[in-house]
Parts: sequence; C-alpha cells; structure tokens
Amino acid sequence: MLKLYIGNKNYSSWSMRPGVLVRQAGIPCEEVLVRFDTFDAGSVFKKTLASITPTGRVPVLTDGDFAVWDTLAIAEYLVEKFPDRQLWPRDVKARARARSVCAEMHSGFGALRSHCPMNIEASLPDVGAIVWRDQAPVRADVERIVQMWTDLLQEHGGPMLFGDFSIADAFFAPVCMRLRTYALPVPAHITAYVERVTALPGVQAWIEGALAEHDFVPMDEPYRARR
Amino acid sequence: MLKLYIGNKNYSSWSMRPGVLVRQAGIPCEEVLVRFDTFDAGSVFKKTLASITPTGRVPVLTDGDFAVWDTLAIAEYLVEKFPDRQLWPRDVKARARARSVCAEMHSGFGALRSHCPMNIEASLPDVGAIVWRDQAPVRADVERIVQMWTDLLQEHGGPMLFGDFSIADAFFAPVCMRLRTYALPVPAHITAYVERVTALPGVQAWIEGALAEHDFVPMDEPYRARR
Repeated sequence: MLKLYIGNKNYSSWSMRPGVLVRQAGIPCEEVLVRFDTFDAGSVFKKTLASITPTGRVPVLTDGDFAVWDTLAIAEYLVEKFPDRQLWPRDVKARARARSVCAEMHSGFGALRSHCPMNIEASLPDVGAIVWRDQAPVRADVERIVQMWTDLLQEHGGPMLFGDFSIADAFFAPVCMRLRTYALPVPAHITAYVERVTALPGVQAWIEGALAEHDFVPMDEPYRARR
Repeated sequence: MLKLYIGNKNYSSWSMRPGVLVRQAGIPCEEVLVRFDTFDAGSVFKKTLASITPTGRVPVLTDGDFAVWDTLAIAEYLVEKFPDRQLWPRDVKARARARSVCAEMHSGFGALRSHCPMNIEASLPDVGAIVWRDQAPVRADVERIVQMWTDLLQEHGGPMLFGDFSIADAFFAPVCMRLRTYALPVPAHITAYVERVTALPGVQAWIEGALAEHDFVPMDEPYRARR
C-alpha cells in the first residue's frame, strides 16, 4: 500500500503537489499528516520523518518499506507504477514541455514563494497589493507564470494546461492558491484557469483538509499574528 | 540534430549536468556556448536565448525547432529518445532513488551552492577553510552529500553512485568540482569517488573546455579580484 507523508495542508505547498495528484488521478494511497512544528532535531516532525527519509522533509511516498522523496521523483514513480493513468501528456513533445515547466517550478519562482507563502485559509489582498507594488521580482515571477499558462492553454485548448489534467496542473495548484490568497492581479483567462483548478475534486479535497486544520505555525505566517 | 546551449563551462554548474551526460553517454549533440555577460535585458546572452527559450536561461536542449529546458526535463527527454543508453538505473527502485537524489540536488543544497559557487579553474582552499569554519549550513549540506554518496556507493558497489554511470553522477559532478576547488574536508572514500568522477572522459572534456575559456565573470567570482 502506498503512503504519502505530508505536512500541513494549509501551508505545505510541496505536499500539495503529490497530494492533489494522487487524489485527482484516483491513485489508492493513504495520506499521513505530519504536523509542522519547530523542525528542531528533537521535534516530533523530525523524529517521525527520521525513520522514513534521510532528508527529513515532506513529502515522502512509501511503497512498502521503500521511500521515494521529492515531488518530481514521486511523480515519476507514480507514472511508472500507474501507466494507465496518463499522469503526463501522451504526446512526446507535450510530455517534455510538461516536464520543463514542472522542473522550472521545482527550482524557481523564489520571489513568489518567499513573499507569498501558501496559506490557503488566509485572505490577504492588502498584503498582496503591497508585495505587488514593492517587489519587482514577484511581478516578474507572476509575469512568467502568466506567459507560460497563456501559451499552454492556447496551444492545448484547455481546460487544464495540457488539455486533460496532468502532473503540471498539480505542480501549479499551490501557485493558484497563492494568486487567490494574495489577490495578485492577473488577466481574466488566468483567473478562469485558477478557478478551474480550484474546482477540481482533488484540489477541493485538499482545501477542505486545510480549512479543517486550525493550526497556526508562526514560521509560515509572516503576515498574521494569529488566526 | 540535438543542440545543447550552455553557459561558461567554468562557472555554469547547471550546464555541466547535461553537458557531461551527453558526452559521457555518447549522445550525438552539438554544444553551443553562450558566454555569460551582464544578463541585462539587452545583453548578448539574453538576446541569444530569447529566441530559443521563454526562461532566458541555460541549459536548453533543442531538437529541431523544439526546445526542452531545465536539467531534469532535458535528462528525461534524453532517456526517452535514447532508451538503449541506460541513462537511469535499470532497476525500478534504483531508478526511483536516482530520481530522488537528482531532484534533491535540483532544489536543494542552497548553502553549498551560494557559498561555494562552481569555479573549475580556481583553487581556493583557504576560502573553503573559512567557509567550512563559519557556515554551519554548508557543513550540513556536505554532511548530507557524504551520507547520500556513502549509502549509494555501499548499496550498489560503485564505482559510480548506482554502479554504472548514470544521470545521478552527471548531476553531482558540479558538487565534485566544488569539493575540489574549495578543498572541503570529506572522508577518503568520498574523495575517491570525486576522483573517479573527475577522471570520466565526459567530465575531463568539460574541465578542458573550462580551462580553455579564460573568461572572468565578476558576478560569479565572490572570492577573486582577477584571474
């Protein structure tokens, strides 16, 4: 049986990617929530993960006693294990493009990630307005995302980035959450894609889980003093 | 015909990964060097890449008029195009583990990357000693690398991380260059692996190219005033 170890659904954007992927693709997988805490060496979080992965981080997928860590490696493992689910686009070039944009997300968009951390339950449009006004690198990150999504939606005709749902939509789902929380200004066709992603059953289930958590993790809350 | 657009061989650790991969695996591919410059919007570097990739970054692989960007996506594209080259390990679990450690490299080891930028031609053992003394996050990065390589070399018996050469060795080749340039202290069996990687024909060819460049790019030279 597959198990996916995840962090708080409200905050853990990296956990959200495989979490949405398995749910939306209907892959049987037990979800194990490891709540964020201090992340000190002796913390429950670190001690729980120590026996599972050498990185001490979420997400981790286990298949029996074998652990696969990192979102991209987890995605590729699921692709190989469930070839019928068509997790990547079928066409070789579309598949390569999907891998390019997922890898670009994986190592990039640092300004958006640090200034607009994922916080699904929060609504922070005023914070978003200030970040947008003051942080040119955030505007550049969003500009690249708008360009990327516009090209892909046009090329593949929507409703998802590569036509049908794929790993790419799961990888950008946390960006959709950020655009909503911080109300960053994007064109209408981008807002429409964000709404379609938000409405996916796999994303809805994740959001419901996030809203049910009621945790407040200070290190993930640069903009709120309390819930 | 495949073309791989790369930055300076002396500095561009991301270019080195697919550069070493194609050479070591004997994949026919033309190398196109786009020299690092100011990276301003009107710079030769940015103008050259603008017509090739929307990210404006190296490395990029083109297959005819189709572009694949980002090291991981390039690697997976080559895996699909050259299935006989066995670029990933053959065993499904070893392959998943190789993807995990490559993805870990792809988004991690930020302290090592920022404090010890790749600079193949330079010899900076004194800088390395100070970094090692003062930067606990660098020591933590190296500790994780030592643990990872030790486990893999033991499990697969060497000489490379997964037995035969694979994408994983290409992904960690720039880390080997850093360990050499900054003379960071690692156990003897790790030094031996670094030497085996350095001796690979694909790595030797890259080093020779780096030594022949004679460029000096100030933004990649935090520790030298001149060559």
